[in-house]
Amino acid sequence: MENWDGNEGTSAFHMPEWMIQFADQKQEFNKRPTKIGRRSLSRSISQSSTDSYSSAASYTDSSDDETSPRDKQQKNSKGSSDFCVKNIKQAEFGRREIEIAEQEMPALMALRKRAQGEKPLAGAKIVGCTHITAQTAFPVFAWKGESEDDFWWCIDRCVNVEGWQPNMILDDGGDLTHWIYKKYPNMFKKIKGIVEESVTGVHRLYQLSKAGKLCVPAMNVNDSVTKQKFDNLYCCRESILDGLKRTTDMMFGGKQVVVCGYGEVGKGCCAALKAMGSIVYVTEIDPICALQACMDGFRLVKLNEVIRQVDIVITCTGNKNVVTREHLDRMKNSCIVCNMGHSNTEIDVASLRTPELTWERVRSQVDHVIWPDGKRIVLLAEGRLLNLSCSTVPTFVLSITATTQALALIELYNAPEGRYKQDVYLLPKKMDEYVASLHLPTFDAHLTELTDEQAKYLGLNKNGPFKPNYYRY
Amino acid sequence: MENWDGNEGTSAFHMPEWMIQFADQKQEFNKRPTKIGRRSLSRSISQSSTDSYSSAASYTDSSDDETSPRDKQQKNSKGSSDFCVKNIKQAEFGRREIEIAEQEMPALMALRKRAQGEKPLAGAKIVGCTHITAQTAFPVFAWKGESEDDFWWCIDRCVNVEGWQPNMILDDGGDLTHWIYKKYPNMFKKIKGIVEESVTGVHRLYQLSKAGKLCVPAMNVNDSVTKQKFDNLYCCRESILDGLKRTTDMMFGGKQVVVCGYGEVGKGCCAALKAMGSIVYVTEIDPICALQACMDGFRLVKLNEVIRQVDIVITCTGNKNVVTREHLDRMKNSCIVCNMGHSNTEIDVASLRTPELTWERVRSQVDHVIWPDGKRIVLLAEGRLLNLSCSTVPTFVLSITATTQALALIELYNAPEGRYKQDVYLLPKKMDEYVASLHLPTFDAHLTELTDEQAKYLGLNKNGPFKPNYYRY
Amino acid sequence: MENWDGNEGTSAFHMPEWMIQFADQKQEFNKRPTKIGRRSLSRSISQSSTDSYSSAASYTDSSDDETSPRDKQQKNSKGSSDFCVKNIKQAEFGRREIEIAEQEMPALMALRKRAQGEKPLAGAKIVGCTHITAQTAFPVFAWKGESEDDFWWCIDRCVNVEGWQPNMILDDGGDLTHWIYKKYPNMFKKIKGIVEESVTGVHRLYQLSKAGKLCVPAMNVNDSVTKQKFDNLYCCRESILDGLKRTTDMMFGGKQVVVCGYGEVGKGCCAALKAMGSIVYVTEIDPICALQACMDGFRLVKLNEVIRQVDIVITCTGNKNVVTREHLDRMKNSCIVCNMGHSNTEIDVASLRTPELTWERVRSQVDHVIWPDGKRIVLLAEGRLLNLSCSTVPTFVLSITATTQALALIELYNAPEGRYKQDVYLLPKKMDEYVASLHLPTFDAHLTELTDEQAKYLGLNKNGPFKPNYYRY
Amino acid sequence: MENWDGNEGTSAFHMPEWMIQFADQKQEFNKRPTKIGRRSLSRSISQSSTDSYSSAASYTDSSDDETSPRDKQQKNSKGSSDFCVKNIKQAEFGRREIEIAEQEMPALMALRKRAQGEKPLAGAKIVGCTHITAQTAFPVFAWKGESEDDFWWCIDRCVNVEGWQPNMILDDGGDLTHWIYKKYPNMFKKIKGIVEESVTGVHRLYQLSKAGKLCVPAMNVNDSVTKQKFDNLYCCRESILDGLKRTTDMMFGGKQVVVCGYGEVGKGCCAALKAMGSIVYVTEIDPICALQACMDGFRLVKLNEVIRQVDIVITCTGNKNVVTREHLDRMKNSCIVCNMGHSNTEIDVASLRTPELTWERVRSQVDHVIWPDGKRIVLLAEGRLLNLSCSTVPTFVLSITATTQALALIELYNAPEGRYKQDVYLLPKKMDEYVASLHLPTFDAHLTELTDEQAKYLGLNKNGPFKPNYYRY
Repeated sequence: MENWDGNEGTSAFHMPEWMIQFADQKQEFNKRPTKIGRRSLSRSISQSSTDSYSSAASYTDSSDDETSPRDKQQKNSKGSSDFCVKNIKQAEFGRREIEIAEQEMPALMALRKRAQGEKPLAGAKIVGCTHITAQTAFPVFAWKGESEDDFWWCIDRCVNVEGWQPNMILDDGGDLTHWIYKKYPNMFKKIKGIVEESVTGVHRLYQLSKAGKLCVPAMNVNDSVTKQKFDNLYCCRESILDGLKRTTDMMFGGKQVVVCGYGEVGKGCCAALKAMGSIVYVTEIDPICALQACMDGFRLVKLNEVIRQVDIVITCTGNKNVVTREHLDRMKNSCIVCNMGHSNTEIDVASLRTPELTWERVRSQVDHVIWPDGKRIVLLAEGRLLNLSCSTVPTFVLSITATTQALALIELYNAPEGRYKQDVYLLPKKMDEYVASLHLPTFDAHLTELTDEQAKYLGLNKNGPFKPNYYRY
Repeated sequence: MENWDGNEGTSAFHMPEWMIQFADQKQEFNKRPTKIGRRSLSRSISQSSTDSYSSAASYTDSSDDETSPRDKQQKNSKGSSDFCVKNIKQAEFGRREIEIAEQEMPALMALRKRAQGEKPLAGAKIVGCTHITAQTAFPVFAWKGESEDDFWWCIDRCVNVEGWQPNMILDDGGDLTHWIYKKYPNMFKKIKGIVEESVTGVHRLYQLSKAGKLCVPAMNVNDSVTKQKFDNLYCCRESILDGLKRTTDMMFGGKQVVVCGYGEVGKGCCAALKAMGSIVYVTEIDPICALQACMDGFRLVKLNEVIRQVDIVITCTGNKNVVTREHLDRMKNSCIVCNMGHSNTEIDVASLRTPELTWERVRSQVDHVIWPDGKRIVLLAEGRLLNLSCSTVPTFVLSITATTQALALIELYNAPEGRYKQDVYLLPKKMDEYVASLHLPTFDAHLTELTDEQAKYLGLNKNGPFKPNYYRY
Repeated sequence: MENWDGNEGTSAFHMPEWMIQFADQKQEFNKRPTKIGRRSLSRSISQSSTDSYSSAASYTDSSDDETSPRDKQQKNSKGSSDFCVKNIKQAEFGRREIEIAEQEMPALMALRKRAQGEKPLAGAKIVGCTHITAQTAFPVFAWKGESEDDFWWCIDRCVNVEGWQPNMILDDGGDLTHWIYKKYPNMFKKIKGIVEESVTGVHRLYQLSKAGKLCVPAMNVNDSVTKQKFDNLYCCRESILDGLKRTTDMMFGGKQVVVCGYGEVGKGCCAALKAMGSIVYVTEIDPICALQACMDGFRLVKLNEVIRQVDIVITCTGNKNVVTREHLDRMKNSCIVCNMGHSNTEIDVASLRTPELTWERVRSQVDHVIWPDGKRIVLLAEGRLLNLSCSTVPTFVLSITATTQALALIELYNAPEGRYKQDVYLLPKKMDEYVASLHLPTFDAHLTELTDEQAKYLGLNKNGPFKPNYYRY
Repeated sequence: MENWDGNEGTSAFHMPEWMIQFADQKQEFNKRPTKIGRRSLSRSISQSSTDSYSSAASYTDSSDDETSPRDKQQKNSKGSSDFCVKNIKQAEFGRREIEIAEQEMPALMALRKRAQGEKPLAGAKIVGCTHITAQTAFPVFAWKGESEDDFWWCIDRCVNVEGWQPNMILDDGGDLTHWIYKKYPNMFKKIKGIVEESVTGVHRLYQLSKAGKLCVPAMNVNDSVTKQKFDNLYCCRESILDGLKRTTDMMFGGKQVVVCGYGEVGKGCCAALKAMGSIVYVTEIDPICALQACMDGFRLVKLNEVIRQVDIVITCTGNKNVVTREHLDRMKNSCIVCNMGHSNTEIDVASLRTPELTWERVRSQVDHVIWPDGKRIVLLAEGRLLNLSCSTVPTFVLSITATTQALALIELYNAPEGRYKQDVYLLPKKMDEYVASLHLPTFDAHLTELTDEQAKYLGLNKNGPFKPNYYRY
């Protein structure tokens, strides 16, 4: 395995691309892109990219080459074989995709530029496991169509290397962390911290911490303000339209829609559909979010009240069995059912796999489930995340995530002894603000600076942080 | 050639499908789908479908079969050879697409049902020329990739048939009408009327009328209220987002956009982008539309004022050279340029085909035009209609058009002698209202009826028409 | 009576103020502001101002002075007594209101400036009858609290003057025109035309025309595009919120509202309430408007379906008995009922004046009607126009109207013999566009001009008109 | 002084009205309504009501009675003299206002009903100091036009009573708390807690706590989710329109507006104005809020960039000197300047009080400040809070506040020993959710309940709380 050195020309990893400038390090990223269902709680940005890659790249699927990547002998342009991908010859294509993407990731570029002198990750040896994107012909351990076994094999190949040991973990879902805990617990002695970006992974870390078993500091970047708003509110506001349109070519105007859940994702979906002329109903369990839905102009109902009349059902709850077989039985003909939430269990799809119902795949990601009386339900992405399966994630959102991860790694790696204990931390607000500020130039947005007098009056440092921790934005 | 008889099982024409129920008739429809540019003023619904088909079907393009359809011997399931398509074997696929589409065209189905007894088109012999859709493996004369010559050959094959002569024309763009004028002027003796649905075609008809050369009544269905609102305002409100997203995966939030033209199309684009968080500027030549833009919250500017700062330029004017080479030279790096208007000349694309600029096709319908200093402009669909090239047209909009055409044909065919002279007519308002009313059940919308007392008070017939002709909706 | 001379310093008429610059002329305007109900179809801009004046000034009503203005001897600052108002001493206050208003009427000022040289109304003797505003202590014949008899007395005093005879009529509602027809038909010999701005007045003129009794050209300025859009769509979008807020201090968020009628007024009301977080239902009789409501995201219902659940009922139909006693009986406690339409008969208020119901005036323009079981309905403005009774009309809207009227007067007065027959005309589109263009500078809006090449391509004159007459905006 | 007993028929205090049912207690509330400026950070709901009362009632100010209430001898209907108001005879009017208000405060009524049996405040002796409303002819110590000295005199009269000592404090601004600290520190021995609702008061409490001087638990109800969202986002979304309309009758469509600050208040203002067709610019110091503004479709600028072109300037920062004299000098003629933020120092109004500028009061709350060259700036409410000075606060928002205060009092009063230390606490999330749930019936909103299985899956109690503390809503 090679150490990245910043000159590596064929890197095809757009997310950790930025790190190249920071240090020489070992980075291993891999993710099994095909079994998204398993990581049910994860709303991962890269997951989405993976999927859009999957479909975009589907025409290459019909390659004759059925040899498992594990059995292939490949070399990158530098002569290294420390990777395992389907076809290293596509590295050039990936390189170009990166270049295009970079144009939309000026924040990351700005950060990289600033970091160029300091090399804040000098000496860092980072092992990572995350979803990979269209661009990834970069030497990693990953390929489309990995089996469960392949997946763990890839992780192990990354971690268990002679003569090299990671000192930072960049995880997305917690699988890598879990593997090291289970197989190589001693490795944690040298590890300075974990950066985790997914809901699931964060959940696991809090459980470890509660149980007193977390042995290094961990940074929960999932809950940083900017990442949350972009992954959920802003991204979903656009991707719900995109996902529905690409799969069904439906018209939104005049359609009756019920959105289950009025968290950030639900808020985004509702706002977009309302703006397009749909009539939107909301279901909620939390009275505060429910009251917000009311004030934002949505009828708050129980699903049963509207299930017979709606044209579209969208789940955004993170909960399970929100749409039951009973609901599905009562929907009207041609009703579209899809999931924008964290979990593929929001819609009880399993209940539809019964002999009396006929499934018809009408196009990619679109199934008609047909009742004995001829009624059809249009099920999208088999109940998996619509925006990951049937839409794409804007590069701008990837940029927010990547910048946040980079800063978290830098913070953990450089923090003075004692600042972080064996616990789970939110990204310091000042860094959250820094991520935001790096993205403002994209919009030609001009921030106002406090005068000394004003800063004093407000009791604030002119450079932030500007808000108390409980501020809700 | 066969007469349609309503039992024709393999009909794959979803637009004239409704006519099957009305009569036995000869219908020939054909359209060359690949040279959209030539019919520059036409905003045709079916054009769009054609195109979306083109791209959807592109994977079948790589068939080895390079024989021209004109040279193929094909038979449909009934044994007829009176058609010319690429591959009649796809008829079954087309049939299924029709069935799916029918579910979204209840208005047409309702109309067909009502007409079933009356057979209002009994005896009608309709020749048509319009864009064909994914579903069209139906015996027609048309195929993807027609040359100019093929196109006119197809038209001629439809018109010039032994033992059959049309008595109605259903045209879209005026080419068919033009051909008959030029080659078979005597045919007009038996023709009861022309139904024309495109801007261009209508324009040609008005010119004929002005010149005193129109020899049959013609119905301008392009300017019916429902068709206008759906083709333009409502459809574009959705398709601008879809077209931009599918081609560029960009995020709309925070983007600066200039929309040239604030007619119905511009209004739809502006509303959608504003709702998605874009900052939208508008250019206009008409002070009334300009004032509307102001009142709707858009800065009214000249293109020069904002050209350096915008992220997206969208033309919706129907005019030519709205975006000039000079404008293109001044745009910033990565600016996206596209056209939603009637004409492919709104953006002066020709001016970009010069040696100093490099064109790079980055994906289907997306070109990077690169300046010597490295600046890239992202040009969509080579300046052709974005929503036809890069989006799809909802079945609901097709339904509006098809219903309108059907009613116009029925009206012209059954009108008592003398009601229509050799002139161009707008669809009678009552029929316009009827088209609308047929579509209300889709939305479970419940119309209120006037009481006798109210009708008297308003001086209206209870069944409409409800508005004076100058009413603007 | 004096002739206005442009130096008249105490003019307190803000609408005809612009005419001062154009000519020397006799102008008499009067309107009985208190009996709005009678002119039921009139959506007059000035009516509103009158009313807002009425309420604003209501505390001065309790003046001791109960002498009828008809019996007072008053002189203006010039020594003239040719007027009849309540208190000429308030002229100074009116003058200042005019100055403030002028700042918001730059279009009128621009028009006046252009006209200064030409004096296009030189020689015109205009008699007018319209609503008067807070600013009117100007020598006219009008006062708050006129009786029916006073009203006709005022009209007569204006028309029947020794040594002076009008040659133009500026009417609003048709009463002045009607009076001259009835009493002084010979006057029409010298009259060059009538400019009429109200729905009612226009209706009367079309009836006269149909009956062949219209003996001079009349200009229907009510239906000009700019006036319609501003009086209805744009103005109501704001005034519905204002009217409801001032009378009830209610919160809009989450409220369920039914809007009866989806014409321009209904569209404005619906858009505003939706934007404020209300849930809006719509009723319609016209299927086209109904379909628009659907596409704009409103449930189209019959009033009965939602009458039990809504918090607010708003009528915008121009029809009668849209809200019946039966509906009122079924409304829930605290339901607010108001009218934004043309007529005070939309809500059957008369049906509420029965012994079993108690009326309680809770504040100005707000009545609680109380059912025997304690249920209260909140009735606003006794069913009269809410925005006229409980809101104000922005000066900008007045400017549109006044500019339109001025242009119509100038056009009729200067039209070459024969251009206008004894018929009712819409304002020429070019003038409509001119009114709009005069108002663009207010918004710092920059119109684009066609190049010669573009004008030729479109077949348009570079200065307009830019649209066919049937264009719907 | 009397003890309230629930039978007190003439209570005219609508906020603490609910407490009557809970207990017998001593309640003294008073607030000097006229010097709002001093409590500069306070966004108090009741302040607003006070003010709207002030202006509504201004015409009664000219009463002859100039005797100070301190010198009057008044008795309420029960014969008690333990109060000091302007005119106890208006008690009946206040009583009716309460009855009307109660109809819009069903949540409070529901809470009162539930509490009726339990009497959770039995034994509580509450002293309060807050803004009083139109309804307050209830025996309190307060009147319109209090001097600074009057204000402290009232407080002292409430606190310093023979034979009665409070055990709970309900404060709004911290003045009452401060007075007791200063004058009667021993009283704290019997006090179980402080409930504080204002920004300023909370700020003072945190300072006390930091300094180790807080000697009882205090509940910060200002930062509860529901209160924040309603006081700021939802309330301002409506009141910015109302405040501007009532003072200026301006039209919003097409106006250019700059909003300084994009916190909850700024977000509400921006959303409303955008919806009404204004073009809105935003200034911000916090990059996260700035990025939100971008994604919501607002140009982020520095004030200097747009100050010359905007029609309206609105401050919502809580900061000082956001609009400086230099900005004011550069504004265009007729620019409207107003403040929606916490402080009356956001606009440097003092800088306008110089000899070269002329002030003209054109109507209540509206000043024209006139530059030597004739330019006028329209300054609203002299830079004080627009929505408190020129708008009203919907009863629904008052209901949220009152319910929150009631619950906080009950919680502190009944909390087991040790649950709360001498510190400042946020309202427990469960109570926050409870406040929200009590308000849902107003909207006929139906909350969904978790199934056991779902609750287990999510690791939540079925009755909440439903979110982690850092959740941002």
